[in-house]
Amino acid sequence: MKKKKTEQNLSALRIIPLGGLEQIGMNITAFEYEDSIIIVDCGLAFPEDDMFGIDLVIPDTTYLEENIDKVKGFVITHGHEDHIGALPYVLQKINVPVFATRLTMGIIENKLTERGMMETTQRKVVKFGASISLGCFRVEFIKTNHSIVDAAALAIYTPVGILIHTGDFKVDYTPVYGDAIDLQRFAELGRKGVLALLCDSTNAERPGFTPSERTVGKTIDQLFQEHSDTRIIIATFASNVDRVQQIINSAYKYGRKVVVEGRSMVNIIDTASKLGCLNIPDNTLIDVDRLKDYPGEQTVIITTGSQGESMAALSRMAENIHRKISISSGDTVIFSSSPIPGNEKAVTNVINKLLLKGADVIFQDVHVSGHPCQEDIKLIYTLVQPKFSIPVHGEYRHLKAQAKLVKELGISEDHIFILQSGNVLEVTPDSAEVVGDVPVGNILVDGLGVGDVGNIVLRDRQHLAEDGIVIVAFAMAAGTDRVVSVPDITSRGFVYIKEAEELMNGASAVAQDVLFACRERKTIDRIKIKAAVRDNLSDYFWKKTQRRPMILPMIIEV
Amino acid sequence: MKKKKTEQNLSALRIIPLGGLEQIGMNITAFEYEDSIIIVDCGLAFPEDDMFGIDLVIPDTTYLEENIDKVKGFVITHGHEDHIGALPYVLQKINVPVFATRLTMGIIENKLTERGMMETTQRKVVKFGASISLGCFRVEFIKTNHSIVDAAALAIYTPVGILIHTGDFKVDYTPVYGDAIDLQRFAELGRKGVLALLCDSTNAERPGFTPSERTVGKTIDQLFQEHSDTRIIIATFASNVDRVQQIINSAYKYGRKVVVEGRSMVNIIDTASKLGCLNIPDNTLIDVDRLKDYPGEQTVIITTGSQGESMAALSRMAENIHRKISISSGDTVIFSSSPIPGNEKAVTNVINKLLLKGADVIFQDVHVSGHPCQEDIKLIYTLVQPKFSIPVHGEYRHLKAQAKLVKELGISEDHIFILQSGNVLEVTPDSAEVVGDVPVGNILVDGLGVGDVGNIVLRDRQHLAEDGIVIVAFAMAAGTDRVVSVPDITSRGFVYIKEAEELMNGASAVAQDVLFACRERKTIDRIKIKAAVRDNLSDYFWKKTQRRPMILPMIIEV
Repeated sequence: MKKKKTEQNLSALRIIPLGGLEQIGMNITAFEYEDSIIIVDCGLAFPEDDMFGIDLVIPDTTYLEENIDKVKGFVITHGHEDHIGALPYVLQKINVPVFATRLTMGIIENKLTERGMMETTQRKVVKFGASISLGCFRVEFIKTNHSIVDAAALAIYTPVGILIHTGDFKVDYTPVYGDAIDLQRFAELGRKGVLALLCDSTNAERPGFTPSERTVGKTIDQLFQEHSDTRIIIATFASNVDRVQQIINSAYKYGRKVVVEGRSMVNIIDTASKLGCLNIPDNTLIDVDRLKDYPGEQTVIITTGSQGESMAALSRMAENIHRKISISSGDTVIFSSSPIPGNEKAVTNVINKLLLKGADVIFQDVHVSGHPCQEDIKLIYTLVQPKFSIPVHGEYRHLKAQAKLVKELGISEDHIFILQSGNVLEVTPDSAEVVGDVPVGNILVDGLGVGDVGNIVLRDRQHLAEDGIVIVAFAMAAGTDRVVSVPDITSRGFVYIKEAEELMNGASAVAQDVLFACRERKTIDRIKIKAAVRDNLSDYFWKKTQRRPMILPMIIEV
Repeated sequence: MKKKKTEQNLSALRIIPLGGLEQIGMNITAFEYEDSIIIVDCGLAFPEDDMFGIDLVIPDTTYLEENIDKVKGFVITHGHEDHIGALPYVLQKINVPVFATRLTMGIIENKLTERGMMETTQRKVVKFGASISLGCFRVEFIKTNHSIVDAAALAIYTPVGILIHTGDFKVDYTPVYGDAIDLQRFAELGRKGVLALLCDSTNAERPGFTPSERTVGKTIDQLFQEHSDTRIIIATFASNVDRVQQIINSAYKYGRKVVVEGRSMVNIIDTASKLGCLNIPDNTLIDVDRLKDYPGEQTVIITTGSQGESMAALSRMAENIHRKISISSGDTVIFSSSPIPGNEKAVTNVINKLLLKGADVIFQDVHVSGHPCQEDIKLIYTLVQPKFSIPVHGEYRHLKAQAKLVKELGISEDHIFILQSGNVLEVTPDSAEVVGDVPVGNILVDGLGVGDVGNIVLRDRQHLAEDGIVIVAFAMAAGTDRVVSVPDITSRGFVYIKEAEELMNGASAVAQDVLFACRERKTIDRIKIKAAVRDNLSDYFWKKTQRRPMILPMIIEV
């Protein structure tokens, strides 16, 4: 791509999202100007339903690797997995410094420590209001609110103008920890003139304002009051430190001891406490083993598993396989969360199991979102008054919904850019235009393998899941057309062989016929013989069962 | 189980749900008194996410088969799949007459015709208010409202008293087709004295009343008015004849021609029209091929696919693989439905694709439920005043929610029975008690196979989906410890072999070592040899990849 020069002989700034625009997940965006690239966020995505066996998904960073000499650093907006989760993988290929606020860095460091990458990774904690210089860019961290403490928006000062990236945010006038979003700074920058605003679209379909986190605190307090005679178990997102703080506040107020369950919850509470983002009164936290020393109505368990994740602590309690906590009619279980789309059934399964054990289960209205609704988005746009609008963080429907709002605010349609991952948007002080694409994609992580499961393996897994596999093995005298064994047929995931003797005997007969015919034609070519076996057996099984198992012929040369 | 006799020397009535109490689906309940059994509904369930490759699930009817001489007939409340879908399968084993109202029978007959079962199935259409006698039971069909026309509640007259089964219902004072629910009859029976009420629990967690179907008609009319300059595509449930009627009414009013897309939609509209449940003005319906003869703003397409089902007409349009209809910016697509739990992601995928094609998509507030909310449930209980309450049609959370409501109405807890499928509830005029269980379960239908995919096959499919399979085949001289070929290793759904040469060469070496060791020990036992190969390869792959593919050793005897 030829790079544009403006009339003032400026190069164009290039904004290149490498993920995050077709889904809520895997956020990563490159900003490039001449020989400088900075990368905002480096998140993972959780696998889609049809990505069988995949643990997580990280972005393809080929473009950055090819321009590694330009890359100045990662600038991270906050500590959620969809913004930091791919860092340990990507840093192995693009080892540049990481900049983030305090808690965000704390969470990143937990990951780096686990993988022994602390020594090799340069890190710098940035305060709100402070700036860092990275090549020709200067990046200022602006205080926002979100469902995790220490979330930042970024003002990116570039040779062509100021950009603002909101990160994930909400407008909370009464946050639990720290200050409210720095609306004055947004306004000030707006007055100076902002070239482009990249704004969170997650809730752009929802009218109204997102309520303050404190409203949940009030609800929780009320629930503690109403359920003073039972043990309380509250499930929420591990990273929502403010939520945990409010639960602890109520626990302390009503004289309950607090147990924290679930590895990710323990880790984050530990990190947040050390950094002073969480204030736990003395003698409030107890070890799970000491639960038995207190009556249920004097304890509260804060736990992971609010999304019905099968291995999380709450699910293990519901399934009766938690080693230390079992659920009974003396429990009130509160879901302080909403199901993330796709998790509804898993959550409902856990709720049913908890109810069956006699627990009282509360799962409505004990949560608020961490993202801006329509009126919040309008507020930010009205403060910032950007020339160009780039909705980010969402599926197409969410980006489109933000675009519609922005149009209503008077920004003309040709100044609004709904990008796709990989698009290269060139921006000058007067213009913005998609000029091309860079390679992007999903890199699948399965166990230790990063990228070794691709489309072929995934398609095979889908096929195997749907219809199973039939293997037909037989021996041939090497280099001849002579079959020297009977075909051995076995299957997995197709039918229960012991009850399908007739079907499998028929298959064996079909295979023998095919081999006989091959012999008649003196076929030596193994590929042809395998194809004949496969095609004939496939037809046979389809006729008999209307299923299409994978057929795998194997020839053993003896 | 010993059967109870009351003081008046009456036997106990036995209520035996064979499905439908752990899920919304697979409704079937047996009512047994001495030598008479009647079966209310015979529904299917759609497969859970982990039932890979399964098309549908039907109930285990062993108990009915074992008591086939007693079974007098199927009494069907309405024509939804979760109430009639298993009939074609179960009738093959339990061939007794089927009783249903007009449209319900019409839909059943479509199924029977497809399978050539019309000749062999006795059928009788029953009018609202009429009764049928079946052994010692008399069953009266009572008019209700639901999201399908001709839904019935049942009054079941038994020697121990009157039972009422509501079926699926809502209270609609202004239904689109036919009369409002016959509340007077519920009241009349309540006055006489009702022993037990089996009541729909689907919406028992939702406060308030379910709005009338006509409210959706008004919304649809308004949307037609607002979108007078685009083509309109409306997706809804094929069986919601009233919804289709209201769409047709608006189409006619605004001078649009109507195209119907999707096989199930065409079938039901056809059946409903023939039975007079649907009134389509002349020259309103046109064939899809004639769409091109009219400008978009003069047409409306009513289609299946409101749940994001991948093969339904709307999904095919969104994917650009519908042969006759393509989506563009001249289209308004309306989802007149809510996603059924579990379908949220599929629906959102379709919405994104439609938006990407430029369509305007409306997916909120163009639907009402067909089930009673809390106030409706209270109304029915207050009219019927049953001695015993048996919440039905729901997951445990829904049954439990109804139980809570009923308790608030003053029915004592020991008169409320949250049953599980298989429970035998014995009821006398004075008592009700769970006295035992009969066998129940899921029978999985996959292609032509009914019940041939069981837990072992399903577990294999889950394993294959997660990690794939590695097959190790080698030849041995029959009856000896001599291996006469090198082990041939191949895999599917594990790694892409071409890029994992080193891994697979290592595996081959491991297999050869194992075979060598077996030879050293003069092992002839094939089971032992296979186990050794499996265990060693499993360890090897875990160490190298942290994955656990299925390992399948095959020995070819030559």
